[in-house]
Amino acid sequence: MSIFLNEKYKNLEVYTPGEQPQDMKYIKLNTNESPYPPSPGVVAAINAEQIENLRLYSDPECNKLREAMANLYGVKKENIYLSNGSDDILNFSVMAFCSDNTPAAFPEISYGFYKVFAELHNVTYKTIPLKEDFSIDYKDYMGLNSFIVIANPNAPTGRYLSLEEIEQIIKGNPNNVVLIDEAYIDFGGESVYPLTKRYKNLIVVGTFSKSRSMAGARLGFAIADQDLIDDLNRIKYSTNPYNINRLTLAAGEAAIKEDRYYKENCKRIINTREYTQKNLCDLGFTVVPSKANFIFAKSDKISGQALYENLKKRGILVRHFNMSKINDYNRITIGTVEEMQTFIKTVKEILEEVK
Amino acid sequence: MSIFLNEKYKNLEVYTPGEQPQDMKYIKLNTNESPYPPSPGVVAAINAEQIENLRLYSDPECNKLREAMANLYGVKKENIYLSNGSDDILNFSVMAFCSDNTPAAFPEISYGFYKVFAELHNVTYKTIPLKEDFSIDYKDYMGLNSFIVIANPNAPTGRYLSLEEIEQIIKGNPNNVVLIDEAYIDFGGESVYPLTKRYKNLIVVGTFSKSRSMAGARLGFAIADQDLIDDLNRIKYSTNPYNINRLTLAAGEAAIKEDRYYKENCKRIINTREYTQKNLCDLGFTVVPSKANFIFAKSDKISGQALYENLKKRGILVRHFNMSKINDYNRITIGTVEEMQTFIKTVKEILEEVK
Repeated sequence: MSIFLNEKYKNLEVYTPGEQPQDMKYIKLNTNESPYPPSPGVVAAINAEQIENLRLYSDPECNKLREAMANLYGVKKENIYLSNGSDDILNFSVMAFCSDNTPAAFPEISYGFYKVFAELHNVTYKTIPLKEDFSIDYKDYMGLNSFIVIANPNAPTGRYLSLEEIEQIIKGNPNNVVLIDEAYIDFGGESVYPLTKRYKNLIVVGTFSKSRSMAGARLGFAIADQDLIDDLNRIKYSTNPYNINRLTLAAGEAAIKEDRYYKENCKRIINTREYTQKNLCDLGFTVVPSKANFIFAKSDKISGQALYENLKKRGILVRHFNMSKINDYNRITIGTVEEMQTFIKTVKEILEEVK
Repeated sequence: MSIFLNEKYKNLEVYTPGEQPQDMKYIKLNTNESPYPPSPGVVAAINAEQIENLRLYSDPECNKLREAMANLYGVKKENIYLSNGSDDILNFSVMAFCSDNTPAAFPEISYGFYKVFAELHNVTYKTIPLKEDFSIDYKDYMGLNSFIVIANPNAPTGRYLSLEEIEQIIKGNPNNVVLIDEAYIDFGGESVYPLTKRYKNLIVVGTFSKSRSMAGARLGFAIADQDLIDDLNRIKYSTNPYNINRLTLAAGEAAIKEDRYYKENCKRIINTREYTQKNLCDLGFTVVPSKANFIFAKSDKISGQALYENLKKRGILVRHFNMSKINDYNRITIGTVEEMQTFIKTVKEILEEVK
């Protein structure tokens, strides 16, 4: 820290990305990436001509990709906002929709960045406790007079709210923006984006990082009423108008054309998730029901920390959160069938050893 | 604008990117892009394997590219910060180094984003007038008790301060950060980054957008004392840790290996700049001496606005700023020799017509 840093950032608790150790080759089940590569059209789209055109700025309006997405989702181009990963949308939304009179509200256990953004922008926030089984009770979110953010499915639990429950929350907070972070929606949930046509206070956020196999391309999106999209653009054009690079735009356009490929991958991941869940249950684990590309599980035979460490020693990375209430658990990304077979076999070995 | 937007952003004047009309094919001399493509190694580096690996997050620490750059610049990896375009660094610096007690200060005529960032973060700022000939007098920057930002060479004027003059400003403000924005330094100026070893209050900002032909890849960098870099990282890890995508990192690494290619391009651009300047002078233009990849010029035979419009009608885009003091001028990016021959020929035709 320098002596020049603004006082208000001196005690900031920053976000900690999942570890990426380089000492050996790991089976990486710790950052919710897809085990499948982007579709063939994406590989073809990033050709020599595209790379040579890197000399030119990207289109700050992202017109082509927004048109393609508007077609796919059945909304207007004006209802689509694109960003350099969906974190930017969450950040900009906290800036735009919170104030001294409007705090933020989000589930007590959820994506760690919501708290970081609130603290960065000096926004007060309340965290709403989950139920004992980690589910969210939509009735806890009525009339909060707050900017509400809910990850659905929630992370790291995988728990899911139905469209009807989300709609109650939107209706219950007509004077505030409700942001539904659907990073994991394609793994068995139902997106609420059609509700953006009826509710002017709803922002639905998605990402190409998970179901569309492009975590490394950085592409997030929001669907909302045009006025809300205009607000996000106001922040974007005051920070980094060219924030999406040319190759990511080209990759995104190609991916939208091959939607079926990604839907098939999601089906495979859902099947592998069911396989993994069943096998962990057979080993005595408690597994939280998941609609995401990960599962959240604990064993009464070994602590969460010990399981994480033992797996890492054996070349498998999962994510352990050293936080009260979820200390016993690990979040396990669903990889390929082969990776999950190895994972289950390794867990068995570890449990044998600690018996 | 929605009814939910925070009051403080309602009157924000956002940045206006250079126009990108799609109605016809233009000779694009309006956004200071390089007329030359990235080096062959960049095209080779973005191969099918890299694209398939887009399923994985990028390295938030950007270790490989930072190491390569540290080698090239003769500094430590810890002195290098990378970002999604250099605008992010300017934005983060205003956040980190301004406060209620520390306003911002920058030249009255300069890159439009400095003012936008100050207003976005509700930071007071003073603008320092230029001399009559658009040059910056370093003596105007002594003891300002402000976070100081200077583009060197300055935009849109192309005017340049020597390393010795910049050093006076750094020494004259030991209690504040001085940020030198060197987006255009490779076109004839001398970078002050070696001074970062001696001054703990200096941040030097660079970009791959201009001399390295990668405006569309979004890659900016800062060189500074490690404490200042740590401050920037604190903001980065509170906003968007994965903000640089995998392909841009790969492109950046390949470009650093082919530094000579880009240096040769800079020489060609400097030669073309001298050619363009001489020919404009022959046509009676006043041309501000430039160390950038653009020139700033006016004619007493035609207004800045009229020249801009006439050029556009004929398929050539330049940048006109509708602002007092520079209204008469246009900023003309240096393209290929052929493009600039066409430009000069077209200007001649326009001047003939208005005679």
